Amino acid sequence: MRLVEETLAAIAPADAAAMGEAAALHERLTKPRRSLGALEDLGARLSGIAGRVPPPIPEPVEVAVFAADHGVVAHGVTPWPQEVTAQMVANFLAGGAAINALARQVGAAVTVVDVGVASSLPPAPGLLVRKVRPGTGDLASGPAMRPDEALASVAVGIDVARSLIRAGAGLLVTGDMGIGNTTAAAAVIAAITGASARDVTGRGTGIDDASLARKQSIVAGAAARLSSEPAPLDALAEVGGLEVGALAGFVLAAGAARVPVVVDGVIALAGALIAHGLAPPVVDHMVAGHRSVEPGASVVLAHLGLEPLLDLRLRLGEGTGACLAVPLVQAAARVLGEMATFDAAGVTDKEHRA
Amino acid sequence: MRLVEETLAAIAPADAAAMGEAAALHERLTKPRRSLGALEDLGARLSGIAGRVPPPIPEPVEVAVFAADHGVVAHGVTPWPQEVTAQMVANFLAGGAAINALARQVGAAVTVVDVGVASSLPPAPGLLVRKVRPGTGDLASGPAMRPDEALASVAVGIDVARSLIRAGAGLLVTGDMGIGNTTAAAAVIAAITGASARDVTGRGTGIDDASLARKQSIVAGAAARLSSEPAPLDALAEVGGLEVGALAGFVLAAGAARVPVVVDGVIALAGALIAHGLAPPVVDHMVAGHRSVEPGASVVLAHLGLEPLLDLRLRLGEGTGACLAVPLVQAAARVLGEMATFDAAGVTDKEHRA
Repeated sequence: MRLVEETLAAIAPADAAAMGEAAALHERLTKPRRSLGALEDLGARLSGIAGRVPPPIPEPVEVAVFAADHGVVAHGVTPWPQEVTAQMVANFLAGGAAINALARQVGAAVTVVDVGVASSLPPAPGLLVRKVRPGTGDLASGPAMRPDEALASVAVGIDVARSLIRAGAGLLVTGDMGIGNTTAAAAVIAAITGASARDVTGRGTGIDDASLARKQSIVAGAAARLSSEPAPLDALAEVGGLEVGALAGFVLAAGAARVPVVVDGVIALAGALIAHGLAPPVVDHMVAGHRSVEPGASVVLAHLGLEPLLDLRLRLGEGTGACLAVPLVQAAARVLGEMATFDAAGVTDKEHRA
Repeated sequence: MRLVEETLAAIAPADAAAMGEAAALHERLTKPRRSLGALEDLGARLSGIAGRVPPPIPEPVEVAVFAADHGVVAHGVTPWPQEVTAQMVANFLAGGAAINALARQVGAAVTVVDVGVASSLPPAPGLLVRKVRPGTGDLASGPAMRPDEALASVAVGIDVARSLIRAGAGLLVTGDMGIGNTTAAAAVIAAITGASARDVTGRGTGIDDASLARKQSIVAGAAARLSSEPAPLDALAEVGGLEVGALAGFVLAAGAARVPVVVDGVIALAGALIAHGLAPPVVDHMVAGHRSVEPGASVVLAHLGLEPLLDLRLRLGEGTGACLAVPLVQAAARVLGEMATFDAAGVTDKEHRA
């Protein structure tokens, strides 16, 4: 598909010269060297993404919540009934979910994208209907979707990100909703990283030991159908989810446009993993918002070399962990753009004393 | 002093009934149980402070940066010359320091309080001159200040917090500036917690191994002049700092008024430790913003039973770590105030299925 090819071709690494310039500026600002820790690394990263120092403050902020259903729920991998996906979409649109409260806190807008909800959703402001198919097939017994559907889900994410960026977004935030989606995410992560099902499969929104064992067994069996280093889109089609594909596309389009994107928990990270497989330098344009309790999240973070900004024991998804990190991302840019240098402020610099 | 006594008498624990009510509300909100992790605990804490559910969103936000000098700098415990304290005060007032950039990010105002800067500062908007004395004495060789001066420094902090609260502050943030103040903070922490100088003394704004050894030796010697469980104000007078005393008062007044206060790094935590010694329930009204790299900070956090929201390897002070945590505190209140319940949103609750 041309949209996907174009996007992949446009992805380049962060600008190393700008990153070096940001690090040099940090040395001259009125604070002890390196005393802002991770915020300094993040400021340099934002400079590398923007290709200039100081980088712009990343705003306005747009959260996209990609919603889809999963055939694997037939196996009891979650105690929540499938209709909750559509019910939660309605809750997002009414402004009553956690992501809505947190988005209001950080001044972000929320767009909900139906990329594969099982039922038909009534049109509503804030809802984009881009349904590739009404939920995946059962990944425990066969491919979750056809290869062309996998590609189409990626294209949906690219298209949504492009629209938001065209409308002025300076920072993108990944969100997800889909009953059963931690099973699909775990299977994608196991297939691509080679980690064991045991190491990537968690309790999702809350399951008992017996359900966890069943879920691990499904993840192991699904991942085993793929070759040892599968093509990212093959893994997506065989064991993934439609929102996972859309999130991959969303992250890819952010990278292509050099707009920073804050990735959330295990679902977004499964998407980020696919994006990285398709275009490795895209990882330079990602910021990890929060370390999800789901074990697969930490496996992907290590695989991609990302250190999350927050670790608050969240396991909700929707983009909540990423959204909470937004002020930190903006603060990192502000430090470079607004702090005075030793010279300008007339503050004695210990490094330059005789 | 009457102001201090009144304040101590007004401090009560968080409201356990409101905390329980908040926990019960969290169970009914449209998210899996406990899926917002630390944010749920924080929301319950804010409910307990306010005595109602949902708690108000803690705003407006006021940062107070208490500045003072330290006689101990004569011993080379820091490479920064003492005049940097006053230079940085000027930088705060001009808006060019890290705390200014971060306060702008979170919509907070900054007040700078001269509680003991060595030099005379010209009057300026945003500067409160409440100088108890022009810097402490040398804590390595004798008391840092007289007992009445220690009490006066606490009273300054109380008075500043009261004024800000009277003017409408819904959230207070502790800040500090003072060349040499990590030495005083370490000595206070060693004296009160009984931890060894080695375990509480860090590199502050950046010192070499030889300077660190000298600093540890000074901290050990100073703390050893006090009895094994010293009265908090005795520890403050003997080995503390004027901004440490003011921060203790600031935290106490927040607790007395049941206004949450976000505490920053090792200097603020030394003040919080004194406040806790004077009125243990004050700890219920504190939120730990960030885990400073300074080892003494973690010693106090453990002593007070506080888990910080952020761990970004900051070691700057000024209130920077606490300020970055402000949106998280506000988000925790928003979750309780703005999220829909399962019933109200028409979302199926797995816990109530047949």
